[in-house]
Amino acid sequence: MMRKNLMLCFRLPIAALLLFNVSTSLADKALTTSDVMDSLRDSDWRRPDPGNLLFMRLPGGEVIFELAPGFAPKTVANIRTLVNEKYYDGLAIVRSHDNYVAQWGDPAEEEEQLRPLGSAAATIPPEFDQPARNLDLIRVDSRDAYADVVGFGDGFPAASDGERTWLIHCYGTLAVARGMEPNSGNGSSLYVVIGHAPRHLDRNLTVVGRVLSGIETLSSLPRGTGPLGFYESVEEQVPIASLRSGNNVPAAERPDIDVLRTDTESFQTYVRSRAYRYEDFWVHPTGRVGICNINPPVRITSP
Amino acid sequence: MMRKNLMLCFRLPIAALLLFNVSTSLADKALTTSDVMDSLRDSDWRRPDPGNLLFMRLPGGEVIFELAPGFAPKTVANIRTLVNEKYYDGLAIVRSHDNYVAQWGDPAEEEEQLRPLGSAAATIPPEFDQPARNLDLIRVDSRDAYADVVGFGDGFPAASDGERTWLIHCYGTLAVARGMEPNSGNGSSLYVVIGHAPRHLDRNLTVVGRVLSGIETLSSLPRGTGPLGFYESVEEQVPIASLRSGNNVPAAERPDIDVLRTDTESFQTYVRSRAYRYEDFWVHPTGRVGICNINPPVRITSP
Repeated sequence: MMRKNLMLCFRLPIAALLLFNVSTSLADKALTTSDVMDSLRDSDWRRPDPGNLLFMRLPGGEVIFELAPGFAPKTVANIRTLVNEKYYDGLAIVRSHDNYVAQWGDPAEEEEQLRPLGSAAATIPPEFDQPARNLDLIRVDSRDAYADVVGFGDGFPAASDGERTWLIHCYGTLAVARGMEPNSGNGSSLYVVIGHAPRHLDRNLTVVGRVLSGIETLSSLPRGTGPLGFYESVEEQVPIASLRSGNNVPAAERPDIDVLRTDTESFQTYVRSRAYRYEDFWVHPTGRVGICNINPPVRITSP
Repeated sequence: MMRKNLMLCFRLPIAALLLFNVSTSLADKALTTSDVMDSLRDSDWRRPDPGNLLFMRLPGGEVIFELAPGFAPKTVANIRTLVNEKYYDGLAIVRSHDNYVAQWGDPAEEEEQLRPLGSAAATIPPEFDQPARNLDLIRVDSRDAYADVVGFGDGFPAASDGERTWLIHCYGTLAVARGMEPNSGNGSSLYVVIGHAPRHLDRNLTVVGRVLSGIETLSSLPRGTGPLGFYESVEEQVPIASLRSGNNVPAAERPDIDVLRTDTESFQTYVRSRAYRYEDFWVHPTGRVGICNINPPVRITSP
């Protein structure tokens, strides 16, 4: 039996701790993530406006995004226009770059074949960062390699230097590809981070949101074998069946989506549980946590 | 033409900078990564001992690992025994956990069906960290959320608190799964990090090396839909055709593999180029770099 128990244990300890309620003291400082999740009340969750949700249908499944209009109002508005005019429908994932990004847009190689942008603008002033005074940042006590202050803004991982505040590139971040000109990121090509946080992209590209559900549909795509992970043939590209605003998904078909609020004491307790790891497995709980290792939980109830 | 140029630009800027030599000043402080790579001499590279290489054959391709016997001598010795006795051949990838790990081992559910460990030990004293005095750490100037000092030891990303030194969990790290008992990690189940660095695992599991090549074969596997990303059926598991030591791969079939040395001035110049990003694309080069965003380059020449 010893070997069998050992094998079973292999399936528990390296843990998505949300799934298991490991017994431990309930004293506040010793709360595990599982304890915290069990203790949440409805008021600890927020339900994003359907107009801030995007639903992308791919052959492998659906990816759901939350947009961040508070940080990138003009770019998000342009993306909404593109979505409403069905710009992305029938376009494709054109790039799957290992430990970096999955990117989509118009795969046409020739200008005359490119899909018109319709009512959307071709250039947008860069929204790489914003004046700090305009935005609330819920600070998290975490030493960061790239920024002096990190935390969450409107529920998204963010950073600040006191004067400017910006959303950062973590796993699952949704952002806008651009050319050499900083204003060339109009939203017609978007990417999602599928690897270790490429934080050097912060303040160099406009972050517009993050994946709430279904990132595995993007992260498990075969990697492109061309330069920068671009697919080398049309056959490798992954067609986008549709990209819809939550406003255009009938309520009866739309799941209920709640995201853990980041402006509560419960959230700080959650963050501490990610740092201290009171489950019995851990020999050396760090007591520390990196900003991109705190992913505000999402709960989804299918219709 | 503007639109076409823009689309082409989309394929350049979010860059695997090793691939493109963006023109810039050659003044030392303004060296791009491409400049640094072009300026390297043969003495900047090291060729790992074939006995420290592992070659794993999967249906989708080959994964090549470098072992770190300096940090985990007993565990690496046990893995060598398992490899030499072909323990892993015919076993399987049993877990693909999004933004976390791919893990392999014996998929048998019942003790009596488990493959015997042969000459290998069933338990190994944990090698989560080592006395700092025994190991050289090439320090990198980087603020880290989890450790006071970070750098490279024997070419692997590492950390120290002055008394103890340990290898850390970055994308591509190879480590040993274990049960609840710290000495239960015998190497019969191994995992590779395929997501954002799960640094809370540091000093809680024994790190034994890293992937040098072919990680996309692991990172693009379909994610398991069971708890913790375990596959729920035998059909989903990915069979391991073979796992061989470089010593047992005929020299005529073995590629020449060189890894950038981390104990040179050239390496420090490389690290600066990753922090400062002098290419024209960057509006806000950070001037900073996280330890897991520095991946010592590998050059491979097929036989």
